[in-house]
Amino acid sequence: MTQEARRAIESADVVVGYKTYVSLIQSIINPKSEVFSGVMGKEVDRAEVAVKKALENKHVAVVSSGDPGVYGMAGLVLEVVAREKANVPVEVVPGVTAATAAAARLGAPLVTDFAVISLSDILTPWNLIEKRLKVAAEADFVIVLYNPQSQGRKEPLAKAYEILLKNRSPSTPVGVVRQAGRKGEEATLTALKDLLNCEVDMATTVIVGNSTTRVVDGRMVTPRGYEL
Amino acid sequence: MTQEARRAIESADVVVGYKTYVSLIQSIINPKSEVFSGVMGKEVDRAEVAVKKALENKHVAVVSSGDPGVYGMAGLVLEVVAREKANVPVEVVPGVTAATAAAARLGAPLVTDFAVISLSDILTPWNLIEKRLKVAAEADFVIVLYNPQSQGRKEPLAKAYEILLKNRSPSTPVGVVRQAGRKGEEATLTALKDLLNCEVDMATTVIVGNSTTRVVDGRMVTPRGYEL
Repeated sequence: MTQEARRAIESADVVVGYKTYVSLIQSIINPKSEVFSGVMGKEVDRAEVAVKKALENKHVAVVSSGDPGVYGMAGLVLEVVAREKANVPVEVVPGVTAATAAAARLGAPLVTDFAVISLSDILTPWNLIEKRLKVAAEADFVIVLYNPQSQGRKEPLAKAYEILLKNRSPSTPVGVVRQAGRKGEEATLTALKDLLNCEVDMATTVIVGNSTTRVVDGRMVTPRGYEL
Repeated sequence: MTQEARRAIESADVVVGYKTYVSLIQSIINPKSEVFSGVMGKEVDRAEVAVKKALENKHVAVVSSGDPGVYGMAGLVLEVVAREKANVPVEVVPGVTAATAAAARLGAPLVTDFAVISLSDILTPWNLIEKRLKVAAEADFVIVLYNPQSQGRKEPLAKAYEILLKNRSPSTPVGVVRQAGRKGEEATLTALKDLLNCEVDMATTVIVGNSTTRVVDGRMVTPRGYEL
């Protein structure tokens, strides 16, 4: 967590967030603050509560995990503020997104160009996700997969695996990190061919190396190109 | 800066980094620490000094700006450790990369899939950079450009502009942020057609919206797809 994010949470009159994320920061929330925590799928409701409270002149912190601007709440809050024509200042506090938290744990797989793709097709049509996977694989981007699968949704990762295997060697290093940057973080370094044998859930970030990514002393490294 | 990065720097016996970055963190370096700062282009030398000092049982912090795993020093340090067969533990501390720091300042342009591409062709062949720009533009990724240009190197941004204009509307929102996350940060919101009129240097991050990115109350927002 950044120092700036910590200060924003500590000084908030109202904290709003998905319940899992609120529980992660419980220890730094001011006991006098109002807390609105909610369930997955109720993001619009949470943005509306936040804007309503801000209009009451409260200092509100809307929390996301990682960086609020990467598949997080930042955009939704700005959209609700605009829709409500609410005259409240909004500051987006950046954070450490799962891509770079997972990368740090694995070694240095992102030291070159990379693409970040969510496999959740709830808000993005699957054919667009598939196209992005295909072109990113063809153009040798390192690829970071967010929301790779959940209990009821195994198909997207299996499809992504097929697309990636068409363009990458089966031995391409792949890193699988659960709970990146959180307590209980677990990292596995494997090869693309074994990706579907790994334990993968919604709290997992998958990093697929490009053609130059190597395993160096047990760490996943994409060389930047310096001569050594 | 994250709390973890701050602790790592404060507790280091030796701090190694590019001189501009070392000067940015001067106030938190322990006055008793040894400092090795150096110039651009001498990255391998700095990694070697860091490994040498670690082998003397010093606690060494190698600093990058942003996230050390995104075009930073993390990979190079791991490679030098391996080459030297140095038995020293290396921990990569993730940070806030320029992409998300710039995005936060602009609004929320990265709330969907995005590609990060450096326009520096010192370590990556230009034809590969061009291919990545082309496919990322075609597959409607939001695109983040690092190292867009320097005084002696205006051509890459001009070429990128041509490639982007073939696939995106001239009115596509584009954000240009200098010194993202640092003192003196400056953000400009413009349209793709006007990109080449902006002041852009090596310390600038450029974010090019996708087909859905809009300007909402003066902020750059890529809708995640929630129904409002």
